[in-house]
Amino acid sequence: MPKLPNAEIITIGDELLYGQVIDTNSAFLGQELGKLGIRVRQITSVSDRADEIVTALDLARTRADVVLTTGGLGPTKDDLTKHILTEYFGTELVLHEASLRDVEAIFARFNRPMLEVNRQQAYLPATCVPIRNLVGTAPGMWFEDRGTVFVSMPGVPFEMKRMMTDTVLPRLARHFQVPPIEHVVVQTVGLGESFLAEKIADWEAALPPNMKLAYLPSLGAVRLRLTGQADGQPDLRGRMLALLPALREKLGNHIFAETDIPLEQAVGELLAARGLTIGTAESCTGGYVAHKLTSVAGSSRYFRGSIVAYDNAVKTSLLGVGTETLAAHGAVSEAVVRQMAEGARQRLGTDVALATSGIAGPDGGTPDKPVGTFWLAYADAHQTLARQISFNRGRQLNIEYATSAVLNLLRLSLPPENNSAAE
Amino acid sequence: MPKLPNAEIITIGDELLYGQVIDTNSAFLGQELGKLGIRVRQITSVSDRADEIVTALDLARTRADVVLTTGGLGPTKDDLTKHILTEYFGTELVLHEASLRDVEAIFARFNRPMLEVNRQQAYLPATCVPIRNLVGTAPGMWFEDRGTVFVSMPGVPFEMKRMMTDTVLPRLARHFQVPPIEHVVVQTVGLGESFLAEKIADWEAALPPNMKLAYLPSLGAVRLRLTGQADGQPDLRGRMLALLPALREKLGNHIFAETDIPLEQAVGELLAARGLTIGTAESCTGGYVAHKLTSVAGSSRYFRGSIVAYDNAVKTSLLGVGTETLAAHGAVSEAVVRQMAEGARQRLGTDVALATSGIAGPDGGTPDKPVGTFWLAYADAHQTLARQISFNRGRQLNIEYATSAVLNLLRLSLPPENNSAAE
Repeated sequence: MPKLPNAEIITIGDELLYGQVIDTNSAFLGQELGKLGIRVRQITSVSDRADEIVTALDLARTRADVVLTTGGLGPTKDDLTKHILTEYFGTELVLHEASLRDVEAIFARFNRPMLEVNRQQAYLPATCVPIRNLVGTAPGMWFEDRGTVFVSMPGVPFEMKRMMTDTVLPRLARHFQVPPIEHVVVQTVGLGESFLAEKIADWEAALPPNMKLAYLPSLGAVRLRLTGQADGQPDLRGRMLALLPALREKLGNHIFAETDIPLEQAVGELLAARGLTIGTAESCTGGYVAHKLTSVAGSSRYFRGSIVAYDNAVKTSLLGVGTETLAAHGAVSEAVVRQMAEGARQRLGTDVALATSGIAGPDGGTPDKPVGTFWLAYADAHQTLARQISFNRGRQLNIEYATSAVLNLLRLSLPPENNSAAE
Repeated sequence: MPKLPNAEIITIGDELLYGQVIDTNSAFLGQELGKLGIRVRQITSVSDRADEIVTALDLARTRADVVLTTGGLGPTKDDLTKHILTEYFGTELVLHEASLRDVEAIFARFNRPMLEVNRQQAYLPATCVPIRNLVGTAPGMWFEDRGTVFVSMPGVPFEMKRMMTDTVLPRLARHFQVPPIEHVVVQTVGLGESFLAEKIADWEAALPPNMKLAYLPSLGAVRLRLTGQADGQPDLRGRMLALLPALREKLGNHIFAETDIPLEQAVGELLAARGLTIGTAESCTGGYVAHKLTSVAGSSRYFRGSIVAYDNAVKTSLLGVGTETLAAHGAVSEAVVRQMAEGARQRLGTDVALATSGIAGPDGGTPDKPVGTFWLAYADAHQTLARQISFNRGRQLNIEYATSAVLNLLRLSLPPENNSAAE
C-alpha cells in the first residue's frame, strides 16, 4: 500500500494577517484532504509580498508532498501569486485558449464587458496544468516540480471549493494512488463530547486497526466520523456499516442523522416524511428558530410561519396567551410557553408548533430565573410537551443553544411516521 | 521614534489542521495588534507534536520581535505547549501560588471539585511572567528570550481575548514603547468597496503621512478605519476627527455609524432615540430580520415582535394581505410587501414596521422574477416605502443581504428625531 502523502496549505493575502478576513479555506481543505487520508502538517498564512511567498514555498516543500495555496490570483496588481509561481518554476506566461474561453463565458453570463486585466487572467505559466474555474475568472494551476505537487487556487471560498471538489481532489487521489477510503457519519445531539466518548469507549476500543473515529463537536452536538482505510479485504463500507447497530444501541435517540446534514434539515425531513406542517412562537430566540428552519432549501413544503412575540402584549393578542397566566407565572414559565405553542399551532394553522421563552441576557435575570433560563415547548393535535434548560455562555450562544434544543425537542416528540399528529 | 515591532502568530492543535475548528483567534490577534501598529508577518498553524512546535518557534523568532501562540494549554495529556516551552527555554516547572488561587476560584465559582490535573495547571515555567486567566483554568505565559518576546495563551477564544485585552496588549505597548496610535471608524452601507474607494480617492490621497485608511468589507457594507500614528504634534485624535466632515460630504447617508457597532445596533439606537417601537413581517428572510434586531442586548426597548408569513395563507390571515392582491401580483411584489408592512404595523401595534418578500433560492425563480429578486418595505404612520433589490449568491447570503438591505431602508426612512412617526 503506498504511503499516504503529507500536505501543507499556504493562504496568501495581507487581509488574513490584518485580521480583516477569517481564513475559512484552510478548514475546508483540511477536512477534504482528511477524507482522502492526506494529513495536513502545517497551515501558513503569508502576505502578498513575493519574498515571503517564496520562503513559504521553499519551506513547505521540505516537509510536504503536496502544497496547496489559495489567494493572490485576482486581476489587480496586488495579486502576485501567478507571477511569483511563474518565476519560481523558471517558466513563462503563455495564453491558455481554453481558459480564455472560460473567462469570456463568465463575462457573457453576467452580461458585462471584459477588461484587458481579465484577459490577462488566461495567461498561465507554460509548465502548469491549468485547472478550470467555472464560477470565477482566475484559473487554478497544478505544477509538479522535483517530486512535489503544487496547486494554486483562488482565495474566494466558493471558487476554491468548486475547483477542489471537481478537479483537485480526484487528481490528488490518482496522482498519489491514495488507497480507497470510506467515511460513515453519525450525528448526535444532547451529549457533551466527554460523556459521549465515555459511553462509546468500548465500542471505539474494539474498532479494527484500519478504522478510526473522529469527534467533531459543535454547540450542543457532536458529529462522529468513522474513517476506514482499504485493507485488502472486500466490502470495506459494508463492514463499517455493520458496526453501526452496536453504536446505535449505545447512543439511542441521541443520534439524529447518519448523513452529513444539520439538525434543522434532519427535522425538516422528518416533517416532510410525515406530511406535517410547522410554525413557531418565539420570545427569547427572536426569530432564530424560524430562521434555522427556513435556512433549509425547500422548507416551504412544511414551514408555514412564525409569531415572534417579544412583547407580552403580542403574546396575548397574537398567540392567545392569557394575561392572568402571564401575571401569575411570568413570561418565562412552563404555563406561558405551553400556551404559546398551542396558540401558534392554532393561529398559524399548522400540525405542530414550537415555542421558546427565556432570558438570553445579558440583562433581565433574577435570582429565581437567572440569565440562561429557557422554557421550550412542542405542541401537536394530541399533546403539548414543555422542557426547561439552563445554558449561559453569552447572549448569542444562548440563543443558538436554545434553538438547537427546541429543534431537538421537536425531533424527539414527533409521532411515528404512520401516525400523523394532525387532527 | 522606535521602530514598530513585527509579530508572528502560531496556533497549535491538530483540530486546526484537520479542519474541525476554524481558526478565528488569528484574525482577532491580527486586528488587535494592528490597532497598536504591530504588523503580523505570518500565521502558522501546527499540530500538537513537540518537534513541529519547536521548529515553528525557531523559525518565527528569526522573523519576528514578538511570537504569540494559542492552544495546547488544557489539562489533558494532548496539551503539551507548557512542557515544550519549559524545555525550549531551558527552565523547570514551579508552583505559582497566585495562579493556583485563580484556578481554585474558578472551580469554587462553578461549585465543582478541582482535580489534580487542574492543580497541575498552576505549575509554570520558572522564567516566565505568568498571565492571569480570570475566566478559565490555564494561565498564560510571557517569556523574554534573546531579544524576542514569546506569549503563550489558551486556544479557547474567550479566554484568549480576555487575556489579550487585559494584559498582553498593554504590556506589549509598554515593552516595545509603541508610539500612541489612534483609530477612527466610519461605517458605510450600500456602496461596494471599489465604488467607495473611487468616491473618496482624493480625500484618501490627501491624508497626512502619519494617517492610513483601511477598508474592511463585509456583505453589503464597508468599515473604514483611519489609523493615526503619533508624529510629535499635539492632539492627534482631534486632527483626525477634523478630517471627517469632508468624508461625510463625499459619502452622505451611506455612513451609518462612526463607532464600531453593527447595522442592527445602529438602527436600534435610532429607534430608541426616537422612542419608536418596531415589528417585522417576513417571508423570504424567514425570521432573520427579527433575529438580527433581537441579537442586540436591550432590544426589547423597541422591538415588539414579528410575523413570519412564509405561507400565503399566513400573509392573509395574520397580516391582512388581500387574496386578490396575492392573485394579481404574486407574493413577491410591491403591492404585497407594502400590505405586509402595513399589516405588521397594525397587528403588532408598533410605530414602524419592515417587510420582506422575495425568492431566496435555489428553487422558485421564474424568468420574470429570478432567484435573488427581493421586495422590501418600510411603513410608519405617515408613509409606506417599497424598494426592489436583486442579489444572488446562494440562499444563505441572499437572506443575509436582504436583511441588511431592509435594515438600511429603515435607517434611511425613519423620521428626524423631533418628528415622531407614531400617530
